[in-house]
Amino acid sequence: MDEEERGTEGWADVTPDAARRLVIAAVEAFAERGYHATTTRDIAGRAGMSPAALYIHYKTKEELLYQISRVGHLRSLSLVRAARDTDGTPAERLDDAVRRFVRWHAEHHTTGRVVQYELGALAPEHYTEIVELRRGTEDVIRSIIRDGVDSGDFDVPDVSGTTLAVLSLCIDVARWFNPAGRRTPDEVGTLYADLVRRMVGAAR
Amino acid sequence: MDEEERGTEGWADVTPDAARRLVIAAVEAFAERGYHATTTRDIAGRAGMSPAALYIHYKTKEELLYQISRVGHLRSLSLVRAARDTDGTPAERLDDAVRRFVRWHAEHHTTGRVVQYELGALAPEHYTEIVELRRGTEDVIRSIIRDGVDSGDFDVPDVSGTTLAVLSLCIDVARWFNPAGRRTPDEVGTLYADLVRRMVGAAR
Repeated sequence: MDEEERGTEGWADVTPDAARRLVIAAVEAFAERGYHATTTRDIAGRAGMSPAALYIHYKTKEELLYQISRVGHLRSLSLVRAARDTDGTPAERLDDAVRRFVRWHAEHHTTGRVVQYELGALAPEHYTEIVELRRGTEDVIRSIIRDGVDSGDFDVPDVSGTTLAVLSLCIDVARWFNPAGRRTPDEVGTLYADLVRRMVGAAR
Repeated sequence: MDEEERGTEGWADVTPDAARRLVIAAVEAFAERGYHATTTRDIAGRAGMSPAALYIHYKTKEELLYQISRVGHLRSLSLVRAARDTDGTPAERLDDAVRRFVRWHAEHHTTGRVVQYELGALAPEHYTEIVELRRGTEDVIRSIIRDGVDSGDFDVPDVSGTTLAVLSLCIDVARWFNPAGRRTPDEVGTLYADLVRRMVGAAR
């Protein structure tokens, strides 16, 4: 239920507590005003801390964006890897990967927007590292689709293009998802898993 | 070929010339730094004009964002309406709508990003108007899908959900499209039209 915005659930791995509060404050500030319009003073204020206290944990605003982006991308990658590494058929594994990936982007839509829209604000070395993680997620989805093509379960004329479209469909959930809307994260996951099954031509 | 960023093609309707130059400058500035981090002074400077000259055409920065958003959304709406109003089968009309919509988001990806990511910065009355235009585009896609279901050409268990997913897939092209990348706007349009045909269960 949108836990990352209210509590610590989405950021439990970030310690100590003060660093976690700063990350949560930064996500909110970046989402509201954009990275470039946010100052470290704004972030410290939202976290109930002084700029000097922020500086103990993060030397720059960019370091906060990098932390947010890294944690978000590692989470995405581990979710799709978990789906890939189960024993199911390619269709079951793709279904599982799409459900998990969609649910994450719905539940963490504020983080998702920051991560996706502010990618260009990362320092070059951080950008390179994040692009590697994104490539990792793409490789996992592509490998599941290819498994299904190889086994004859899927009918996919363009594996790379279809992989791109599946990821794009799931990521865009962060843009439009509204917790007050008609569909729960689970329901969007179910709908999208069905649409992706159709995209890859999997028999039911 | 990404005309809106270099020339006047995408903004030919905006007159006089000075107003058009300001719109083009604003799109670039908002895309680079975000709406809230951009000042009217930045925009005037990019357009080679003084802040006073900007003020003749646009009273506020928000008015520029509204103009950009309105023109972009009207274009999208007229593209899908043109596809809906042809004589083809539902599959042909949906195919045409997806190709046009995708091509627009690929060719005008910078405008598309500004329009999608800065929606929340619009004044309430402008936001309401833009949401109406978005609803219009959604209605067009939904009506084509429903036509296909009614005629027995499509097999769609959740018409609203599928409409949402089709629009989401096409809009997200603005986020990831790179003119230096592997696929041209036309190629992405062809790929996506095929994937959408599969999503709606249309026989080839």
